[in-house]
Amino acid sequence: MKIKGQHYHTIWIKGDEPATVQIIDQRKLPFFFEVIDLKTPEDAYLAIKDMAVRGAPLTGITAAWGMYLALAGFRGRDLQGYMKKTASYLKSARPTAVNPGFTIDTVLNFIICEKSASDMIEKTFDKVKKLEEDEINYSNKIGDFGLTLIENIYRKKRERVNILTHCNAGWLACIDWGTATAPVYKAQLRGIPVHVWVDETRPRNQGARLTAYELGEEGVPHTVIADNTGGHLMQHGLVDLVLVGSDRTTVSGHTANKIGTYLKALAAYDNKIPFYVALPSSSIDWSVEDGLNEIPIEERGSEEVAEIEGWSGKDIKKVRLVPDNCKTANYGFDVTPSRLITGLITERGICKAEKSSILNLFPEKQELCTK
Amino acid sequence: MKIKGQHYHTIWIKGDEPATVQIIDQRKLPFFFEVIDLKTPEDAYLAIKDMAVRGAPLTGITAAWGMYLALAGFRGRDLQGYMKKTASYLKSARPTAVNPGFTIDTVLNFIICEKSASDMIEKTFDKVKKLEEDEINYSNKIGDFGLTLIENIYRKKRERVNILTHCNAGWLACIDWGTATAPVYKAQLRGIPVHVWVDETRPRNQGARLTAYELGEEGVPHTVIADNTGGHLMQHGLVDLVLVGSDRTTVSGHTANKIGTYLKALAAYDNKIPFYVALPSSSIDWSVEDGLNEIPIEERGSEEVAEIEGWSGKDIKKVRLVPDNCKTANYGFDVTPSRLITGLITERGICKAEKSSILNLFPEKQELCTK
Repeated sequence: MKIKGQHYHTIWIKGDEPATVQIIDQRKLPFFFEVIDLKTPEDAYLAIKDMAVRGAPLTGITAAWGMYLALAGFRGRDLQGYMKKTASYLKSARPTAVNPGFTIDTVLNFIICEKSASDMIEKTFDKVKKLEEDEINYSNKIGDFGLTLIENIYRKKRERVNILTHCNAGWLACIDWGTATAPVYKAQLRGIPVHVWVDETRPRNQGARLTAYELGEEGVPHTVIADNTGGHLMQHGLVDLVLVGSDRTTVSGHTANKIGTYLKALAAYDNKIPFYVALPSSSIDWSVEDGLNEIPIEERGSEEVAEIEGWSGKDIKKVRLVPDNCKTANYGFDVTPSRLITGLITERGICKAEKSSILNLFPEKQELCTK
Repeated sequence: MKIKGQHYHTIWIKGDEPATVQIIDQRKLPFFFEVIDLKTPEDAYLAIKDMAVRGAPLTGITAAWGMYLALAGFRGRDLQGYMKKTASYLKSARPTAVNPGFTIDTVLNFIICEKSASDMIEKTFDKVKKLEEDEINYSNKIGDFGLTLIENIYRKKRERVNILTHCNAGWLACIDWGTATAPVYKAQLRGIPVHVWVDETRPRNQGARLTAYELGEEGVPHTVIADNTGGHLMQHGLVDLVLVGSDRTTVSGHTANKIGTYLKALAAYDNKIPFYVALPSSSIDWSVEDGLNEIPIEERGSEEVAEIEGWSGKDIKKVRLVPDNCKTANYGFDVTPSRLITGLITERGICKAEKSSILNLFPEKQELCTK
C-alpha cells in the first residue's frame, strides 16, 4: 500500500544484502517514517517485543525472518539445537498471537528436514519468502471476500457505508492490504463510498496512530473516536458493519484480539449490526477450542496506561495521565465469544464462527484438532 | 472529603464575601490544586462550559449559585426578565445533564414568588444553600443505601470487593461524598476491604485524573485501566459490582452518562454482574421516558480526541495523538437502556430502573410526568 504515494510492504529484504531484513518502525508513526535493519534473531525478537512491528500476520513473518537470520548467521556445531532454542526464544516475544508460533514451527521443521542440503540457507530464504507471499495473498483474498459484504450493504443502502474498526488490522499489521482493512481498500477501488470509524485503541493508540495514518495515506475517509464511542454510534444507526482482525481464533471461533474488541462485539450484537473478524488461517489455533480459558492474555507494562505518547509540536513526547504513585493495569487482549461474531472472513471464504463451518473451509486441518 | 488530609467541598462561599463563590479548578487536577473565584453569572457559565466544574450534581449547584450571583449583581429595572434570560443562558452551558435545569428553575421560581421581599437576596442565598445541603444529604443517603449492596457481596465473598466505575461520579462531581463513590467511601469507613477499577474515561480522562485522585486522597485502593479493559475483567471474575453515576435518568430508568457507560453495562449484563446507577433525584428527568431519542447528547470539540493533556514533568502539556489533518468526533454521553441496569441507588432507597418502581419512591413527582 502507499505512503506518500509510494508503494511499500511492512517488511522486506534490504537491496543486495540478503542477510538484512528491513521494517518500518511503527512506534514512530504517524509522526516519523523510519526504517530499521534487522540482522540477528535478537533484532527480530526485540522488534516484536517492543512493538516496532505488531499485528498477528506481521509478527509471524518477522519471526520467520528471525529464524532465517539465525540460520544465516549460525557458525557452531549443533544447528538443530540452536534453531530449536531460537524458535522458543522468538515465540516468547509476545504470547497471545498464534501466527509467530505457526511460522516459526514451519521454518524449524523445514530446516530439520533439509538439514543435509548444501543450499539450505537459500532454500530457507525461499521458504520464508513463500510464507510472506502467502500472507499477502491471504490478505488479498480476504479483501475480495469481505468486499462482497460491503457491496451487499451498499446495494441496499445506496449511501456511504460506515465501517467501525478497532486497533490496527490494516496493512501495517500485515505485509500488504491488511485483514480488516482489505475489504475497505477493495471497496474504495470499486468506487463504493466508504467511511471508517477508527477506535483510537488505548493504551497504545494503534487506531489513532496507525489505522488513521494508513487510511489517510490511501485517501479513505475516516474519523477517529475514543474507544468509548462505538456503542453510541451503533445505537444511532451510524455503523453498518464492524470489521476487526484477530490475534488468535480458536477452532470454535472464539477470537482473541486487541483489548476492547469484546465490548464492540457486545454493542454490535445488541444493535443487530454485523460483526466480522477478518483473518488469515495462520491466525487460527487448531489445537484450542475454549478461547476464554486457553488463550494466554499478555499483560504489558503498566506505564503504557499511566503515560501516553504524542506529538508535542517538535518531537514525540510522553505525558503522565494519572496522579503520582497511581496503580495501573494493562491487559493487551480480550476474547470475543463466537456467539457474538457474525462470521469469519478468511482467505478461502466467509464462514460461521463455529468449528464445523471453519473446518468445512479448511478440511485438511482436521488432523491438527486435538479434541 | 479530603485533599492532603484537609476537608473540602467542591464549591463554597468565599470567607466574608457573600457575592463570591469559590470552586476547585478541576481541569488542573491531579497536577495542580487551584481555586477559582466566581463573581458573575458569566463566571459560573464558563466554569460549567469549560469544565472547571463538572458532574451533574455539581454543575447543578454551580448554576444555582450563578443565578444567585446574577440576582446579587442586578442593577436594572426588569429583574424577572433579566433572571429568565440568565436562566436560559446558564442552562445552555451544557445540554445533557438535567440537574442545572432543575436547580435553575427552582431558583428562578423562588425569585419570581419572592419578588416583593426586601430581603430577597438573603432569602435566595439561603435557598441555594439549601439546594447545596440537599445535594450533600442525597449523596450521604446514596452512600448508606449503596453500602448495603457492598456489604451483601462481602458477606458472601469474604474477600476484597472489586467495584468498577466509569468517569468521575465521585465527590468531585458532587459537593461531598459523590454518588457512585459514596457507597465505596462508606464501605471503607465500615472496614470492608474494597478495590476500585477506574476506567480512565477518554477523551477527558476524568477517571484517570479525578476518580484516581480522590480515591487516592481518601486511601481507597484502586487501579486505573484503559476504557477497553472492563469487559475482560468481568469475563474473568475480577469485578463484583459496577457503580456509575448519571447525567440524566428518564422516568423509565434509561440513563445518559459519560460516553462508554453503555458498553460497560452490556459487559456487566453479559457476565451477570450487578450494574447500579447511583443518582440523586435531581438527576431524574420526570418529563422524559425515551432516553435514546429524547435526551440531547452533547458533541464537544474534536480537539479533545485529537489531543490529550498530561504531566510533562514540569507542567501540564498537550500532545497530539492523531496524524495531521485527521478528523475526530467527540460525543460526550451515551444512553444505557434500563433493561441493562440492575437498579438505581437514590437518596430514598434502591429501586428498579422502571417507572413504577421509581415513582414508588418519589410519588409526589407523578404530576411532573408528562406521559
